[in-house]
Amino acid sequence: MPINEFSLIEQYFNQQAFKCDDVILGIGDDAAICKIPKHKKLAIAIDTLVSGVHFLPEWPADVIAHKSLAVNLSDLAAMGATPSWFTLALTLPESNECWLAAFSKGLFRLADQYECQLIGGDTTRGPLSITIQVAGLLEQPLMRSQAEVGDLIVVSGQLGAAAAGLAIIQNQIELQEPFKTQASEALLTPQPRIALGKTLSTISNCAIDISDGLLADLNHICESSDSGATIYLNKLPLFEGLKSLDEKTAWEYALCHGDDYELIFTIKPPFKLQLEKLSQALDLSLTVIGEITSGNQVICLDQHDQNMEFSNAGYRHF
Amino acid sequence: MPINEFSLIEQYFNQQAFKCDDVILGIGDDAAICKIPKHKKLAIAIDTLVSGVHFLPEWPADVIAHKSLAVNLSDLAAMGATPSWFTLALTLPESNECWLAAFSKGLFRLADQYECQLIGGDTTRGPLSITIQVAGLLEQPLMRSQAEVGDLIVVSGQLGAAAAGLAIIQNQIELQEPFKTQASEALLTPQPRIALGKTLSTISNCAIDISDGLLADLNHICESSDSGATIYLNKLPLFEGLKSLDEKTAWEYALCHGDDYELIFTIKPPFKLQLEKLSQALDLSLTVIGEITSGNQVICLDQHDQNMEFSNAGYRHF
Repeated sequence: MPINEFSLIEQYFNQQAFKCDDVILGIGDDAAICKIPKHKKLAIAIDTLVSGVHFLPEWPADVIAHKSLAVNLSDLAAMGATPSWFTLALTLPESNECWLAAFSKGLFRLADQYECQLIGGDTTRGPLSITIQVAGLLEQPLMRSQAEVGDLIVVSGQLGAAAAGLAIIQNQIELQEPFKTQASEALLTPQPRIALGKTLSTISNCAIDISDGLLADLNHICESSDSGATIYLNKLPLFEGLKSLDEKTAWEYALCHGDDYELIFTIKPPFKLQLEKLSQALDLSLTVIGEITSGNQVICLDQHDQNMEFSNAGYRHF
Repeated sequence: MPINEFSLIEQYFNQQAFKCDDVILGIGDDAAICKIPKHKKLAIAIDTLVSGVHFLPEWPADVIAHKSLAVNLSDLAAMGATPSWFTLALTLPESNECWLAAFSKGLFRLADQYECQLIGGDTTRGPLSITIQVAGLLEQPLMRSQAEVGDLIVVSGQLGAAAAGLAIIQNQIELQEPFKTQASEALLTPQPRIALGKTLSTISNCAIDISDGLLADLNHICESSDSGATIYLNKLPLFEGLKSLDEKTAWEYALCHGDDYELIFTIKPPFKLQLEKLSQALDLSLTVIGEITSGNQVICLDQHDQNMEFSNAGYRHF
């Protein structure tokens, strides 16, 4: 007998190890019921991943699940929130139990890592897509609108690895190991910068994740903060695998292709020492790549102070 | 120039009249930020509507938007929550501005009616589907698990109108006016029972919406409450348009076909007088149709106390 909607939820989605203290009623009623600790605010993000657009249907189901949750957790990281719970709207062409078991495993592996509880959802039949909404708690949000002229622009981790992973799949480039595996992992199973986001409010009040591409997302900061920015290309922390490519292509991967799920954030120059300490504490590179300027343009300067133009300003669905 | 993702959001989804006091930061950052008033809890529900499954792509976009939000608000009503805010994940095959304008209009018409603010979302390209997550506030939830033996089972409104609306579209039945229009409206633009849900906690602590069909949803109550139920068929408040059909078919429409978005709830027998007062206050029929029993079966008795069997136990995706 094929599995039905209700036993599917019971078997694959009502079994995670972690239970959040703030969840009063989880899966199984018309709605979930949660409470919020005093003095905390709720951060809420929602993202859809569509088969053939954000992932390929032949990707392993645990990878699809990981990425679907990770991109949402990345939004919470960019606000400085600690993940609490999430809901899942899963649209499937058929109820394939093997696929569901793998999906469930990948989903809860990441959810449990960040102590984030699945509290409800909806399963429907249709073309494969996954919508996840996450909620997290915070006291002071890191907002796009809070950058000020003279602030330093900092980026976490390395840039362009996910773009390299996609280019490998599309047979546009070839990389040697270990770069090939690193690029693939960056594309398929990105790690949201939750630990960074949670501690950032001590040195920053403005952050964004660079899922749309560094330049596109820096533009969002500049628009919201009514400012401009200068980026120094030779300071970009390029993924090492990109060093076999010509310089302009490597910069394009790092600035324009998106899917990196690192954070960019702004700090006042006196916080540079604390930035270094934070980098050591988190064992994560945090690189100053430029500064916020007056005006409303994002300018990229090479090592000769020449302005380089980049055509692609992030992935756009429409 | 075709509209892009960001201007699409700005133009069609960042313009509603109502602003919820509890929303600190709405559309436009990595996540929305909300607060929760003291002593309140948050009720959270999520539902996806897929083109060709839950609606036909040729339906007017404002109708699709209305229904997508209404089915979610109905879940909040069934918990006894007052709507606060919602998020929208909209997957579209193309950015058709005419369609988007109508969708936006239908969405905000209903959202503003219930003072529910759109705080965020995601627009992606893919096969048409709409996922909405709503959040509402409450003090004491109405839970499926709280029915007790001897409780009366009450249903709001009329039953089977949405099923009749679908049967008309599928050329299975023909109805005269005004029933034809009423059936169509019940299917296309259901009205969530928010006002009822908000006041129910004075007489009930167990409710569910009958989106899956009355029998299927009553079964959810019985399973969660470890009980059974008896329904008296001649007490069912049938949609008047069904009276031209044979009795068994009319009962099937009322009990099995779903999409009615009425509430069933349980009350102790002494609350019958208060039920009548509530019905008058809300100008909404509230009909006792049966009672909670021991055992674990839902039994439907006709006017001769004969047990009638109904084959369809609600819509199931898998």
